[in-house]
Amino acid sequence: MNTHNELRSLTTRESIVLLSSAQVGRVVFTDEALPAIRPVNFVVDGASVVIRTGREGSLSKLNGNVVAFEADHIDLATRSGWSVIVHGRAERVRDIDQLVTLADPAKSSWVPLRDYFLRIPFEMVTGRRLALPHVTSEATG
Amino acid sequence: MNTHNELRSLTTRESIVLLSSAQVGRVVFTDEALPAIRPVNFVVDGASVVIRTGREGSLSKLNGNVVAFEADHIDLATRSGWSVIVHGRAERVRDIDQLVTLADPAKSSWVPLRDYFLRIPFEMVTGRRLALPHVTSEATG
Repeated sequence: MNTHNELRSLTTRESIVLLSSAQVGRVVFTDEALPAIRPVNFVVDGASVVIRTGREGSLSKLNGNVVAFEADHIDLATRSGWSVIVHGRAERVRDIDQLVTLADPAKSSWVPLRDYFLRIPFEMVTGRRLALPHVTSEATG
Repeated sequence: MNTHNELRSLTTRESIVLLSSAQVGRVVFTDEALPAIRPVNFVVDGASVVIRTGREGSLSKLNGNVVAFEADHIDLATRSGWSVIVHGRAERVRDIDQLVTLADPAKSSWVPLRDYFLRIPFEMVTGRRLALPHVTSEATG
């Protein structure tokens, strides 16, 4: 087969649909002047990503910092997939009503004893797909 | 089942074995003052990660920059997995003998027309595993 996969940009809407289909992503930030990354499970809540972390870890220091959040899905067999990146200023969730909703057990952290909620609003959303030229989002998302 | 997964640190050796088992990872860097991340396919070559990228993209500007490189494997069903992060100063590969070896078709980029090789030496290697307390690396790596 001579056809090669092509890398193309996704629309914001396509990107958010794909992001919402994922359960695990990665927070990207700067930690003591070094690039840092932490895989986390997450939920999309309104126009933001919400993660649940511990009070002591490096993610809990991000309140007010601009971070990136990435999720992807890669198929090794076909060498195809997508990646979506959100940039936004991470903020600790302090609103009681929001916390009650977010504390839904279905949205629980995969690691026990994590009660610090961090919200990353969709300030910038970008996405890319690597696929055969004729493949659309609907067919593989 | 009351047993919870636990997050534990991996040794450098465990981390490198797991990293070598992966085909896709993510370069983490700073791009115009924003945290940035790019999924890429890669190979472990000696004590470094090598990726193949285009001459025009943001990754080709990283020559000399300290970056992070992350690979992970997450099992959604068991909510377990591992993540390994390498930090190192990214360097363009210019040595002719190295380039000939790296240009092996088996190590080709998933995206066509990429002939810029970037090496990230293992200056710092960290890894974490989320698993049931009794699970060892050998059982799930």
